[in-house]
Amino acid sequence: MLVVQKYGGSSVANAELIRNVSRRIARRVAAGDRVVAVVSAMGDTTDDLLALAQSITDEPNPRELDMLVATGEQVSCALVAMALQAIGVDAVSLTGQQAGIFTGSQQHQAGRVSRVEGDRVRQELEAGRTPVVAGFQGITEDFEIVTLGRGASDLTGIVLAIALGADRYENCKDVTGIYTTDPRIEPLARQLKDITYEEMLELATQGSQVMHNRAVELASVYNLPIMVTSSMVDAPGTLIHGGTELEERNRVRAIAHDTDVAKVTVRQVPDRPGIAAHIFEPLAEAGISVDTIVQNASDHNLTDLTFTIGRKDLKRTEALMPSICQSVGAGSYVANGELGKVSIVGVGIQTAHGYAARMFRTLYDAGINIELITTSEIRLTCIIEAAKVHDAVRALHAAFELEKAE
Amino acid sequence: MLVVQKYGGSSVANAELIRNVSRRIARRVAAGDRVVAVVSAMGDTTDDLLALAQSITDEPNPRELDMLVATGEQVSCALVAMALQAIGVDAVSLTGQQAGIFTGSQQHQAGRVSRVEGDRVRQELEAGRTPVVAGFQGITEDFEIVTLGRGASDLTGIVLAIALGADRYENCKDVTGIYTTDPRIEPLARQLKDITYEEMLELATQGSQVMHNRAVELASVYNLPIMVTSSMVDAPGTLIHGGTELEERNRVRAIAHDTDVAKVTVRQVPDRPGIAAHIFEPLAEAGISVDTIVQNASDHNLTDLTFTIGRKDLKRTEALMPSICQSVGAGSYVANGELGKVSIVGVGIQTAHGYAARMFRTLYDAGINIELITTSEIRLTCIIEAAKVHDAVRALHAAFELEKAE
Repeated sequence: MLVVQKYGGSSVANAELIRNVSRRIARRVAAGDRVVAVVSAMGDTTDDLLALAQSITDEPNPRELDMLVATGEQVSCALVAMALQAIGVDAVSLTGQQAGIFTGSQQHQAGRVSRVEGDRVRQELEAGRTPVVAGFQGITEDFEIVTLGRGASDLTGIVLAIALGADRYENCKDVTGIYTTDPRIEPLARQLKDITYEEMLELATQGSQVMHNRAVELASVYNLPIMVTSSMVDAPGTLIHGGTELEERNRVRAIAHDTDVAKVTVRQVPDRPGIAAHIFEPLAEAGISVDTIVQNASDHNLTDLTFTIGRKDLKRTEALMPSICQSVGAGSYVANGELGKVSIVGVGIQTAHGYAARMFRTLYDAGINIELITTSEIRLTCIIEAAKVHDAVRALHAAFELEKAE
Repeated sequence: MLVVQKYGGSSVANAELIRNVSRRIARRVAAGDRVVAVVSAMGDTTDDLLALAQSITDEPNPRELDMLVATGEQVSCALVAMALQAIGVDAVSLTGQQAGIFTGSQQHQAGRVSRVEGDRVRQELEAGRTPVVAGFQGITEDFEIVTLGRGASDLTGIVLAIALGADRYENCKDVTGIYTTDPRIEPLARQLKDITYEEMLELATQGSQVMHNRAVELASVYNLPIMVTSSMVDAPGTLIHGGTELEERNRVRAIAHDTDVAKVTVRQVPDRPGIAAHIFEPLAEAGISVDTIVQNASDHNLTDLTFTIGRKDLKRTEALMPSICQSVGAGSYVANGELGKVSIVGVGIQTAHGYAARMFRTLYDAGINIELITTSEIRLTCIIEAAKVHDAVRALHAAFELEKAE
């Protein structure tokens, strides 16, 4: 089997961990698999480099930042290759450029992969070598170094796996897989054997930190199976896949949560076309990312419009609100910065009966007030008081019997 | 004027020094010069990266070492470019590859520049930008990263200056120029206004650390003037140049010294062809670099052959000596590891009368015994007891009146 494995920063944070990763790769090679490893920068290296840039100037140029931070992955891929060689595995490190990861130009700090030239990696594999690729980076057609955005080493791994026609992509982490919810909150949380791409995307959007959404989306388009597994211990992981036979499963698979939510409600907005643009354009220009938007039913041509943002953006949002209210002729606004959200996720739950009702009843029984409800195809989210989020996670985990094996 | 400036590791060792370097470059740009900056890795970065490799494996692969240590210069060129931008200079950092520094393949850790593709640097200059190039690194035609050997950022600067047809190469350091001798030993040492390439090469070979010999040789071939100057203070530097009009100057320009010399004498060697090969091939195979070789006049077909090496190699050399003596039928050998050397350097001194005599007389008057004498076109070197080297430097500096302005 041809497998692309990614090792994140915490898995290669020091020499001991790098040797551990190399032994893990070596075992797979010895077992007959062909392995392409993709590595992130060691531990906090990327943050350290960004701090160094900040010590030079408050507003470092994005192109120069890419030049700077791309060194982090170059260091770790060289060290992992050395560690492999030291235990007898013929390995070779490759920069993003050498691995043929091309991006568009003018995309510094947020590169999009435009094409993958897999020849070099294929040649190394055919020569019996194990390529160790610097994640998170690519090159433009003009040889400009571009990074793919924070956490995007997964993207490097996925595009390489697709280009090489790999059988599987493995995301090797400091966790053993995807859980029904955060085990630090609910000790009964159970590791899932598998999960669909869609469910994974909803979990990620709702606060789970396991994988980069762009990477999961891309894998789903090419139907590339992803195994989320431990880089430390030998344990079964969680397989993310298309799961067509599971579409009709109709059950809650996991509980996602987030405790950093702020909500702003603009009241008594005259309900005419263009209102939303007037409200959200100034926020977008200020770089404030809006999460959920809910517009309540209109009453006497006046409507209430509510949106949620990350708590860190609340201060800057409140500074913009008076002029926004004036521009749309709204009566006033109210803000609440002490909110969180809890979501149930599972393919089919929206179309099936009873899931929403059971969720609301469970929160009610736990004495938790619901501020806002939003839904997607496979998700149902309630915005609640931040202090109640952990209680809600535990209550819902029990109500949907997620501790029981499927 | 188009000038290529190099800033060594100690000139960019931290954010404050990087800002200082950027102000220095900015003043030159403001004065109307076009500047290409070449930078080394910050402070001890290269050593830190090598230590990191050693923590992974005792014998890191040279290709992987290049991949690893080349990041040091990439970091510093990005930071210097940021610092320039922060004070309003339109700058752009370039890796060795982006600057078009090509090397031969299979030359990891000791790359030789095969060609310079100066188009990108020229384009940046024409667009009014100041390129900041990562020193010490190049790329093969197959996009493999190759470093040019320790201290070779000067080489990057020189080949770029030649390729661009620059008016001058400036080596900006933590010293203000070339001195008649080490000012830490002889406080009366005086900074030279200029010096010839040949004199500089002899000084470097004899222990002066100012510039990489390969860089000086290359500059001399292309008659590129080199200014050695301070990266910290505004002070006149020392110009290294062809100096044809100075050929007949006939005077001692500087005193070089080295306190880490060991000497081995092979005694009573039967004087027949092939002796030297039998003695020096085993040393070369062991990676021991032999400095001076002197064969004394033959007597009854037996000769004494003396060579000097760095003190650090003495132990390994002594281990090889018994078998070497046996293979050439030598009677025995003697070794002395506590030696040093002192040299007088100056174009024309060998052909002129009196310099050698004055050197020997000066050492005799100072009670210093001469173990070995070697000469070149423009140098006269005496091997003496290591403990007497500093005394010899001061005595010769006074005897040749180097404290006096020329």
